[in-house]
Amino acid sequence: MTRVTVWNEYRHERQEERIREVYPQGIHAQLASFLSEAGLDTATATLDEPEHGLTEEVLNNTDVLVWWGHVAHQEVSDEIVNRVHQRVLQGMGLVVLHSGHMSKIFMKLMGTSCDLKWREAGEKERLWVMDPSHPIAEGIGEYIDLEQEEMYGAHFDVPAPESLIFVGWFEGGNVFPSGSTYRRGSGKIFYFQPGHESYPTYYNKEIQQVIINGVNWCAPAKRDYPVYGHSEALEPIREKVGV
Amino acid sequence: MTRVTVWNEYRHERQEERIREVYPQGIHAQLASFLSEAGLDTATATLDEPEHGLTEEVLNNTDVLVWWGHVAHQEVSDEIVNRVHQRVLQGMGLVVLHSGHMSKIFMKLMGTSCDLKWREAGEKERLWVMDPSHPIAEGIGEYIDLEQEEMYGAHFDVPAPESLIFVGWFEGGNVFPSGSTYRRGSGKIFYFQPGHESYPTYYNKEIQQVIINGVNWCAPAKRDYPVYGHSEALEPIREKVGV
Amino acid sequence: MTRVTVWNEYRHERQEERIREVYPQGIHAQLASFLSEAGLDTATATLDEPEHGLTEEVLNNTDVLVWWGHVAHQEVSDEIVNRVHQRVLQGMGLVVLHSGHMSKIFMKLMGTSCDLKWREAGEKERLWVMDPSHPIAEGIGEYIDLEQEEMYGAHFDVPAPESLIFVGWFEGGNVFPSGSTYRRGSGKIFYFQPGHESYPTYYNKEIQQVIINGVNWCAPAKRDYPVYGHSEALEPIREKVGV
Amino acid sequence: MTRVTVWNEYRHERQEERIREVYPQGIHAQLASFLSEAGLDTATATLDEPEHGLTEEVLNNTDVLVWWGHVAHQEVSDEIVNRVHQRVLQGMGLVVLHSGHMSKIFMKLMGTSCDLKWREAGEKERLWVMDPSHPIAEGIGEYIDLEQEEMYGAHFDVPAPESLIFVGWFEGGNVFPSGSTYRRGSGKIFYFQPGHESYPTYYNKEIQQVIINGVNWCAPAKRDYPVYGHSEALEPIREKVGV
Repeated sequence: MTRVTVWNEYRHERQEERIREVYPQGIHAQLASFLSEAGLDTATATLDEPEHGLTEEVLNNTDVLVWWGHVAHQEVSDEIVNRVHQRVLQGMGLVVLHSGHMSKIFMKLMGTSCDLKWREAGEKERLWVMDPSHPIAEGIGEYIDLEQEEMYGAHFDVPAPESLIFVGWFEGGNVFPSGSTYRRGSGKIFYFQPGHESYPTYYNKEIQQVIINGVNWCAPAKRDYPVYGHSEALEPIREKVGV
Repeated sequence: MTRVTVWNEYRHERQEERIREVYPQGIHAQLASFLSEAGLDTATATLDEPEHGLTEEVLNNTDVLVWWGHVAHQEVSDEIVNRVHQRVLQGMGLVVLHSGHMSKIFMKLMGTSCDLKWREAGEKERLWVMDPSHPIAEGIGEYIDLEQEEMYGAHFDVPAPESLIFVGWFEGGNVFPSGSTYRRGSGKIFYFQPGHESYPTYYNKEIQQVIINGVNWCAPAKRDYPVYGHSEALEPIREKVGV
Repeated sequence: MTRVTVWNEYRHERQEERIREVYPQGIHAQLASFLSEAGLDTATATLDEPEHGLTEEVLNNTDVLVWWGHVAHQEVSDEIVNRVHQRVLQGMGLVVLHSGHMSKIFMKLMGTSCDLKWREAGEKERLWVMDPSHPIAEGIGEYIDLEQEEMYGAHFDVPAPESLIFVGWFEGGNVFPSGSTYRRGSGKIFYFQPGHESYPTYYNKEIQQVIINGVNWCAPAKRDYPVYGHSEALEPIREKVGV
Repeated sequence: MTRVTVWNEYRHERQEERIREVYPQGIHAQLASFLSEAGLDTATATLDEPEHGLTEEVLNNTDVLVWWGHVAHQEVSDEIVNRVHQRVLQGMGLVVLHSGHMSKIFMKLMGTSCDLKWREAGEKERLWVMDPSHPIAEGIGEYIDLEQEEMYGAHFDVPAPESLIFVGWFEGGNVFPSGSTYRRGSGKIFYFQPGHESYPTYYNKEIQQVIINGVNWCAPAKRDYPVYGHSEALEPIREKVGV
């Protein structure tokens, strides 16, 4: 059974009444709720716990980490970021949601600024499936309609993805590469744009399905970690003349 | 005219007689020599200069940076690495040679460990062209033979490249993705494996041609840097009922 | 100087008054006009000429072929399609415009149905630049606005492109991968979606710039065609015991 | 349970004694044997059966088709090739083995010549895993050694793959992209180079594992086929002034 840890900075929900109304127990609780129902072995961790809830033990027992952060990216310690980074390279899956695009861990894995355009105007988004044969799109129709979502707009400063699964159409005239996959080391990564804290996006059944699919796609296979370093010759090497 | 800065840590050549015999003025001098002859506006910079020779002014006047480092990666200051990183994202090209695969700047751009197998056994390498339609392979036949080169072997822990241009065949039985391109932000990156300090690889005319091609391919276009951040709506947004 | 041949089926313009008003000399004449002004050595060819204007001689002297077709795809002979296909594999560039997505030559190169959604409703399109570092986007701002264009919508049944340069936002709620590049054999291919026959799209200066960029990007390098077939061993092969 | 059809032209084994000694019941029988043991619902089909054994009914009940052909590619009828092609675009997986690289179906899906270098010299091949995180490499160590295999050498004239999983090192000095994946329409494709008719390659347990993995990776998901064609607007379209 895939073991999922949902990480949330958990600040908006404690500090702002209108956000708490949307996610009374925190965004992590809502994410964990539908992931559990989908049969995943799910736990949560938040920024203000010791070691941000991401101890060596927790990470060593996590197959896929789900990440939601926004206003407190800089409060995540570099030590924990490095720890998560190592685990991803060794095969732990990572699902980065919405404003997690500027988290330290995502930026470290991408190597770019991860910047984008944005607008909070309560506008409609339609997420079009661009790659219907991808497992992350399984069970989704041609598109997902969200009555309101924060606009994230191109250009999005990330490396070219392995697969571009969704493109978001925004009422206000923008588009965005809303669902993309990457591999880094032995780890698989899925970035998914929807999920602004002030809208009930994570109650939407289709959005939930995409996140469940994303977690399943990111789950690591059971295999050995690659061997690096000095390596003996496998074939005879001829002596070179005059060397 | 493309402005190239060749950066070299310049330690082996000063500390080891047998390396100095191969590159009496340093690897950077040899690289700069054939790049200049190819009509590129070429300067050099080395680790032990102030700011490693990579001041704001130098970088602002560099179109493509060529990087050779090996034993002193950790001596490159994070501040300079961040400065180079910013310039790459803004469009400066970067050619990373041989053991530069473990340089801080390459690791930061890749987001992975950049680890590999290696062996110093004086063995033959044959670099096969895998993508003959790529500009970096222009003027090169089907392969390049190197009488002796350090073995670098798969698995190479980097993200999937934009293009895989060369694969190295090694006498001792290994293969390696020896020439690959990446784009990060507005910058283009070319990694090229040959060039161990103890072999005269950078005197080889075909290797020189590949590096010249790589510099030309990485040269930035003249264009505006993308705009990120808050963005007004371009189309009318309908008021949502009951929100 | 890059030699361009603009191919057009040239039927709408001769048969329909309202189309002729937009392109009195044919779409090919308008395309050739701005390509010539950009310094390209440009000729035209049309369906109803002998061999569709694409004789061996014409193709052997063409560096980049631009293709516009719509209602008469099936009238293009398989022999000519095979001839164009061979030339592309040998390095001739190909720019496929708008409804050319269902041309025999594009389908043969893609290996898929090349099908899509469409709607002719005079709606606005905004072409967003998704890859600002690509040469084909040079000189273009963040997006191109077209007051009216035929809607082409995802899913577009083509292989994953080498680069996705534009995504179209349509007023009616759809998105489309509007500019993509491919390489097949030694040839480079650029597909660009705008250009419905009833709208004056090819008079738009930015659209013209993209097509000029596309032709320049597709232009072949001067190099040898790869060698295939039986090949002697380059290294000694040991006799196997008991074989 | 995934339903597999193994297709073989079945000529070498009937016409040449030395090949029959290696595969007495035909290559298809040997492939079917280990695929069945792996729990796959496996059947076979051969060239000289009516409709080459690939009736509408057979294909409609096939999830993944495995293809081995060599001397008789031209005897496969275009009608059957088109039928297989349609099924792949609709989601049927396709595993193409060894000399199947020049089969009509593979060439039609790739859009290129699919040509390569070759040499039958009984030389050693070492298949290096280039992408250890890919499911097709699961259960395989760092490489697979084959005492003897036909040399297939770069350049291989196919489009850039989705993933490059294996590169073959050949004793005689060549390399080859020996395992690659593609997606075309809703179908997944895996090309795998080993398997010359005169060597006992398909008795090798690791080669068998790769082929089993490839079949499993290519198996289609249960989902709807994309909808193409005319499409009504999803958002209101404003009337344009003066049009």
